[in-house]
Amino acid sequence: RPVREVLFFPSRVTCTEALLAEAAPPGACRCPLPRGDCPLSRLLRRLLSARRSLEICLFAFSSPQLGRAVQLLHRRGVRVRVVTDAQYMALSGSQIGHLRRAGIPVRHDQDNGFMHHKFAIVDKKMLITGSLNWTTQAIQNNRENVLIVEDAEYVKPFLAEFERIWEEYNPI
Amino acid sequence: RPVREVLFFPSRVTCTEALLAEAAPPGACRCPLPRGDCPLSRLLRRLLSARRSLEICLFAFSSPQLGRAVQLLHRRGVRVRVVTDAQYMALSGSQIGHLRRAGIPVRHDQDNGFMHHKFAIVDKKMLITGSLNWTTQAIQNNRENVLIVEDAEYVKPFLAEFERIWEEYNPI
Ligand SMILES: [Zn+2]
Ligand SMILES: [Zn+2]
Repeated sequence: RPVREVLFFPSRVTCTEALLAEAAPPGACRCPLPRGDCPLSRLLRRLLSARRSLEICLFAFSSPQLGRAVQLLHRRGVRVRVVTDAQYMALSGSQIGHLRRAGIPVRHDQDNGFMHHKFAIVDKKMLITGSLNWTTQAIQNNRENVLIVEDAEYVKPFLAEFERIWEEYNPI
Repeated sequence: RPVREVLFFPSRVTCTEALLAEAAPPGACRCPLPRGDCPLSRLLRRLLSARRSLEICLFAFSSPQLGRAVQLLHRRGVRVRVVTDAQYMALSGSQIGHLRRAGIPVRHDQDNGFMHHKFAIVDKKMLITGSLNWTTQAIQNNRENVLIVEDAEYVKPFLAEFERIWEEYNPI
């Protein structure tokens, strides 16, 4: 049965170490955060299900947990590509510099309008999209939505949009 | 067959008078804009299909065309309710004051986080959601997406989210 899920934020803050730690056994983190599911942990789980490819098209990306998840996928051999907005990328706290230094290809726009999308595509078959920028401010404080859709009728046009932007922002 | 559509912006600017004018016959507008379909006209058409109810939950709403569409529906007897973000509402160019003066109920948040949703629900059965704020800047200059979904599995949670926010922002 294809995934169809809706997440609403703000999310309560729970410990996400069991999802993100590469070595430690689940439950090993000693932080005082409560355990259990939350919209952020559900979003992380969907992203971490990637086995082959992950396209990310985000206006703003500064969440440390989501940054760790993307780097983890990159180290597992998933082909990660990131498109982002030039204006926001320059702000402090952005994850974009970390991703680049880890060897993940990132492209950004040059022109006046905003690259305002907030979507990701997992293994060319699961679309994750909504109002949520990947920032701690948005996750913990804002009213936001994320749809998760495993349906080619929605995934294909978003993948085509990603490829259009990827080519348009080609620095060469 | 249920509606499933994806719109990408920026949109070229075409004349939307034939959709929005209450009296004039189609084609009567003398403006020099090109005729024909564009993502904005498709969005307007979906909204204008409302017969009974329209819930709108928007961070930013300043587009004159979308404002006219909402007022037109209100005059046709559609029950329109609007939720918006307090910070943005105060900016010049917002449509919110016009909607209020037309008699459309509007509620807004009081707290610190942003009400960052960008969705509308037509007749409790069609969800319109994405990255797009209803501003001319976003429509004409930004890379944006809008999904249109006629599927209770997505519509129902968004309707519940609207009702939660509507009650939470109750000024009484
Ligand atoms: Zn922890
Ligand atoms: Zn015209």
